[in-house]
Amino acid sequence: MIIHMAEGATPEQTQRVIDRISRDYGLRCETIVSETTVIGIKGIASIVDEGRLLELPGVESVLRITEKFKDASRAFHHEDTVIDVAGVKVGGENMTVFGGPCAIESEQQAIDSAMLAKSAGVDILRAFVDKSRTSPYDYRGLELGRGLEIAKAMKEATGLPTVSELIDLRHLDAFLEAGIDVIQVGARSAQYSPLLEELSRVDVPIVLKHGFGNDMSEWLCAAAYVMSGIDREGRSVGHGNRNVILCYRGIKAFETATRFAADIGMIPLVRQKSHLPLLADPSHSAGDRKLVERVAYGFIAAGAHGFEFDIHSNPSEALCDGKQAVNYEAERIIRNARGIHAMLAGVGIESGSSVAVAAK
Amino acid sequence: MIIHMAEGATPEQTQRVIDRISRDYGLRCETIVSETTVIGIKGIASIVDEGRLLELPGVESVLRITEKFKDASRAFHHEDTVIDVAGVKVGGENMTVFGGPCAIESEQQAIDSAMLAKSAGVDILRAFVDKSRTSPYDYRGLELGRGLEIAKAMKEATGLPTVSELIDLRHLDAFLEAGIDVIQVGARSAQYSPLLEELSRVDVPIVLKHGFGNDMSEWLCAAAYVMSGIDREGRSVGHGNRNVILCYRGIKAFETATRFAADIGMIPLVRQKSHLPLLADPSHSAGDRKLVERVAYGFIAAGAHGFEFDIHSNPSEALCDGKQAVNYEAERIIRNARGIHAMLAGVGIESGSSVAVAAK
Amino acid sequence: MIIHMAEGATPEQTQRVIDRISRDYGLRCETIVSETTVIGIKGIASIVDEGRLLELPGVESVLRITEKFKDASRAFHHEDTVIDVAGVKVGGENMTVFGGPCAIESEQQAIDSAMLAKSAGVDILRAFVDKSRTSPYDYRGLELGRGLEIAKAMKEATGLPTVSELIDLRHLDAFLEAGIDVIQVGARSAQYSPLLEELSRVDVPIVLKHGFGNDMSEWLCAAAYVMSGIDREGRSVGHGNRNVILCYRGIKAFETATRFAADIGMIPLVRQKSHLPLLADPSHSAGDRKLVERVAYGFIAAGAHGFEFDIHSNPSEALCDGKQAVNYEAERIIRNARGIHAMLAGVGIESGSSVAVAAK
Amino acid sequence: MIIHMAEGATPEQTQRVIDRISRDYGLRCETIVSETTVIGIKGIASIVDEGRLLELPGVESVLRITEKFKDASRAFHHEDTVIDVAGVKVGGENMTVFGGPCAIESEQQAIDSAMLAKSAGVDILRAFVDKSRTSPYDYRGLELGRGLEIAKAMKEATGLPTVSELIDLRHLDAFLEAGIDVIQVGARSAQYSPLLEELSRVDVPIVLKHGFGNDMSEWLCAAAYVMSGIDREGRSVGHGNRNVILCYRGIKAFETATRFAADIGMIPLVRQKSHLPLLADPSHSAGDRKLVERVAYGFIAAGAHGFEFDIHSNPSEALCDGKQAVNYEAERIIRNARGIHAMLAGVGIESGSSVAVAAK
Repeated sequence: MIIHMAEGATPEQTQRVIDRISRDYGLRCETIVSETTVIGIKGIASIVDEGRLLELPGVESVLRITEKFKDASRAFHHEDTVIDVAGVKVGGENMTVFGGPCAIESEQQAIDSAMLAKSAGVDILRAFVDKSRTSPYDYRGLELGRGLEIAKAMKEATGLPTVSELIDLRHLDAFLEAGIDVIQVGARSAQYSPLLEELSRVDVPIVLKHGFGNDMSEWLCAAAYVMSGIDREGRSVGHGNRNVILCYRGIKAFETATRFAADIGMIPLVRQKSHLPLLADPSHSAGDRKLVERVAYGFIAAGAHGFEFDIHSNPSEALCDGKQAVNYEAERIIRNARGIHAMLAGVGIESGSSVAVAAK
Repeated sequence: MIIHMAEGATPEQTQRVIDRISRDYGLRCETIVSETTVIGIKGIASIVDEGRLLELPGVESVLRITEKFKDASRAFHHEDTVIDVAGVKVGGENMTVFGGPCAIESEQQAIDSAMLAKSAGVDILRAFVDKSRTSPYDYRGLELGRGLEIAKAMKEATGLPTVSELIDLRHLDAFLEAGIDVIQVGARSAQYSPLLEELSRVDVPIVLKHGFGNDMSEWLCAAAYVMSGIDREGRSVGHGNRNVILCYRGIKAFETATRFAADIGMIPLVRQKSHLPLLADPSHSAGDRKLVERVAYGFIAAGAHGFEFDIHSNPSEALCDGKQAVNYEAERIIRNARGIHAMLAGVGIESGSSVAVAAK
Repeated sequence: MIIHMAEGATPEQTQRVIDRISRDYGLRCETIVSETTVIGIKGIASIVDEGRLLELPGVESVLRITEKFKDASRAFHHEDTVIDVAGVKVGGENMTVFGGPCAIESEQQAIDSAMLAKSAGVDILRAFVDKSRTSPYDYRGLELGRGLEIAKAMKEATGLPTVSELIDLRHLDAFLEAGIDVIQVGARSAQYSPLLEELSRVDVPIVLKHGFGNDMSEWLCAAAYVMSGIDREGRSVGHGNRNVILCYRGIKAFETATRFAADIGMIPLVRQKSHLPLLADPSHSAGDRKLVERVAYGFIAAGAHGFEFDIHSNPSEALCDGKQAVNYEAERIIRNARGIHAMLAGVGIESGSSVAVAAK
Repeated sequence: MIIHMAEGATPEQTQRVIDRISRDYGLRCETIVSETTVIGIKGIASIVDEGRLLELPGVESVLRITEKFKDASRAFHHEDTVIDVAGVKVGGENMTVFGGPCAIESEQQAIDSAMLAKSAGVDILRAFVDKSRTSPYDYRGLELGRGLEIAKAMKEATGLPTVSELIDLRHLDAFLEAGIDVIQVGARSAQYSPLLEELSRVDVPIVLKHGFGNDMSEWLCAAAYVMSGIDREGRSVGHGNRNVILCYRGIKAFETATRFAADIGMIPLVRQKSHLPLLADPSHSAGDRKLVERVAYGFIAAGAHGFEFDIHSNPSEALCDGKQAVNYEAERIIRNARGIHAMLAGVGIESGSSVAVAAK
């Protein structure tokens, strides 16, 4: 982190900045006093809140070099993290497909959709008991106990590990007891810190969706909440859950022709910035079945470690998001996506094109 | 709600749409069959999930007329709602100022800032025990019990009612026991349904911030969660908390020169669309003390019922968001804002300019 | 187009709407009068300005069904348009690569970069004489005559057709005389109607970039300006230039980690909505060479007909946008992209997944 | 400008950066070599293209301190610029209202609307001959000669100076000969450099609208195009037109309930960043007459030097944007806005709250 003092800043003002950094963060500074005073902070400045420095008299601007999301950053963990979900690998050289119905609506629909997903080739099955909805009048899922029973039945019927979104943090134990293998954090909870803190105390793999109102740094800071295990009071370190899988789903933008703007550049960028496995969600980003197939191919070609998508045995009767669920084309989508992934194996992505670096 | 069937839709497809509306929502339809079939739904279509209709074969498009956020909509409640907070009125003809430090950092800072806020003329005092932060490494507040103790002391020292943000839903009882008068829902929790549902079961006034990734409809649907008291399973109606105060704070947009884009058009629009009291937050929208004063005036002139802003006894030592906190200028800001509000009293806003309607 | 009259609209108000549609647009209406009056417009309502209808007393809302961008719409031209550029096909089953230096800086740099582009396998060569820049202080190109001379030399040296951005509409003749094969309209001119009208009077193929502040409808309406040849006064039809190639480059969004948000869902969507060839620009969307390779793959996998990207013989000496130019990796990028395109040949995109339609 | 070299950058890499700055821009550098090398550029770094520096090997990041939009920046021109339009002052302590019909449709409509605008109290009359429209099928104005004749008649009938949008740069002379007093550059032309350059060669006052896809820096750089008179080739300085009036109209954002997001924080921010007069456009930002009144008040309270809005003698018959035009309420809007402006006279805005600076 580099701090640039304003023209005419006094030595006392400069000293006050240095004192704050040293006292509050335990970091050393190096000062260069010339016509323009520049202070360089040594050490891991992730923990520094630049807002507090900007507020000091005489400070003109602050240039952050070390990213805030230290735990999720590749700068501190060069190798890809590979996460094991009941024997299924996520991240690194692997391509993994998460799929299944958007929500559990009934036992019949859930089992039918699960079997369709399995035959299409998914690796990890969506078994979503709860649905976060914009309006309280929309379908939000079956009664919790019944939903979890069906989730269990889906797992048994297919033999696949299951992923399920946890909305109410008080239900975590029930989810784990019901054998859910991966806990998903949805877009609307993506910055809800009590939930993130709760998940930092267990070891179960987490799929952390990208909030549609969040930028990359906020998303990776949410991952840092789960991974660091830092608790609210003071800076003592708790347990920390390193098993975080990122899932991109696009952001709100002014274009209304697609549901969300799924910025394809984010896929290679997040791969370069973070060591965590990166999925993408073609169903919730595009919001329309007619787009899902090609969007899924785009994500894989751009470097995603896999995708998570909605598969429904009868989309036109779905109680939730049927418009974006695929049916029997799921098998073709997964097959072609694996073909693209295989073709591009070995085309480095983690550090950008090695060629470019050489060219510099 | 009007449903437009595609060219060539069959009578069977049309009937299936009508059956779904009648069976699932208990609403009647009127069909017009000509070259293009159009179905009109009669009754309050707020409860209809248009996504489910769009998914039916033959449906081309759906035009929503009744807004989803029924409980918050002026169409169903023509008069302004006025909420009483320990004797202070919010909404209607009143202009109310919420202010105080961004966060409680210590007893001294809290009491000093509270006294400054009181002398500046605030009506309801910010006493924020918890802070939702992007990074787990940033300051998130004192230990809960200690924070609530100080909040109590701030209330006693000033005699003002207090507002405090509830992040962890499990702390609601502690907040109420500590005498917090208004519970605030912050931008990062603005669509977290378990928290909204919890607040629907009490009567304490709620300040519902606008999530920076949410549009107007999502925001007012969040209000409907609190107001309707509809629980997750089925459509049975619970208690419902009608005491919702809206607070606008702007959205994420591509402009980086301001912190959030606080769309001034939203102020008169939300006043027209909703009967609920509407505040705005010049500190968190502009993110810079140098802009706060004029932004506050803009909000009031545009029709807000008041504002909530950060006042700190020593901004350059603040542990959180000091850059946007005002100090002794708070008094002038409140005074001028009240002047603007008084000058514009009687210039109708609820239904748009009455002149315009006549001109039509 | 369906017009929904407000509750309580009078028969006179309804008649006035019908009269306007009939008088100003020559279209017939069908009215359904029940509790809610609905007017359906028959015929091609692309020419109707819905703003003018919304303004009539009694009109509640207007639902547009026929898109405004008629000329570019697949609804009126079912087959893919394939454009011939000096023997190189663009659109349909073809994948075409446009590439070369961001700007002509000197003869040496231009020829070196052109030869590198040719050896990498580009089909159509960038020979950019003018550069549109945000700041007047940035490099905007060599003197026009000199620039066009070098463009000619690039074409001769490589034997490739050339594309060049026309900024000043008064230079069109000079461009055509210098043998430029494709005229590009840049993002900053994407809605500048005098330039679009000028291009409607020639037959040379046009690459129409997507403006970073425009949505899909605005972009395709810009294509309609070039294609329709409608002139400013009255509605008489002029020449019209049907040879329009679309080029997507992303939009401004709140994410700052990438330069623009290149919404991957737009690729299959625009393919479905329009019959025109669709390119994408991985260099200008991602803005960073380290992302260009994977973004290019993403665009092709999602269904683009090709891409246009910056290739520079010495990026670190580039006078313009060197950061996003690739060097010797260009060959690998084109090769892999062709592999992905070939693998997905025959996976329908134009009408969405045929499966999905069947599933309905 | 401060340049931060990457860890491990070699002395040769550092020297190359210094050489480029010295050779290409004629600026001196100061280097600080410690664990992290930092280069400070001395002098006015507005002319430096940071993209070219970022591309040099070893460069990690660049922190811009001097803004690119030098000519428009208050840092180089501390006093407010006041522009004289045929005796009407714009900027400084003045509040000025521009108003009239969105477009000239006929002599009758134009004169009626002009007289209504005059009686409402506008200072400068909209006499818009050309309209930039998204679709070629929408109304774009009368034949040029006829339009300019009517513009002249509007001026004569009212005795007010006139403002008119210039779209086609080849019409500039005709506009000036017809006695147009202020040339407006519209949102769709806001970055079209040939038009901006053309306007730099005359002295007539310019209203430069904010492009809905542009950020503040792009907008003020467009002003710099007009003001600097720098021509395309080389850096020689031409005439330059200093009479630029800024006009804010909001940006595209994901909120669809308002037409554009008019970020109220931009008003005081642009006042602080630039010495140029600043208007705002409540009609085109809000897009709905029902919002225009309160949005206009918001802009004035936030510190705008005035506003420009649509006034039409019969909005429901308008050929263009009737929905946002006001009628007889114009008089009340102007009167109340002047009241707010007078009340806040003397509440400093140019440098932010002086109090805040003291508090630091």
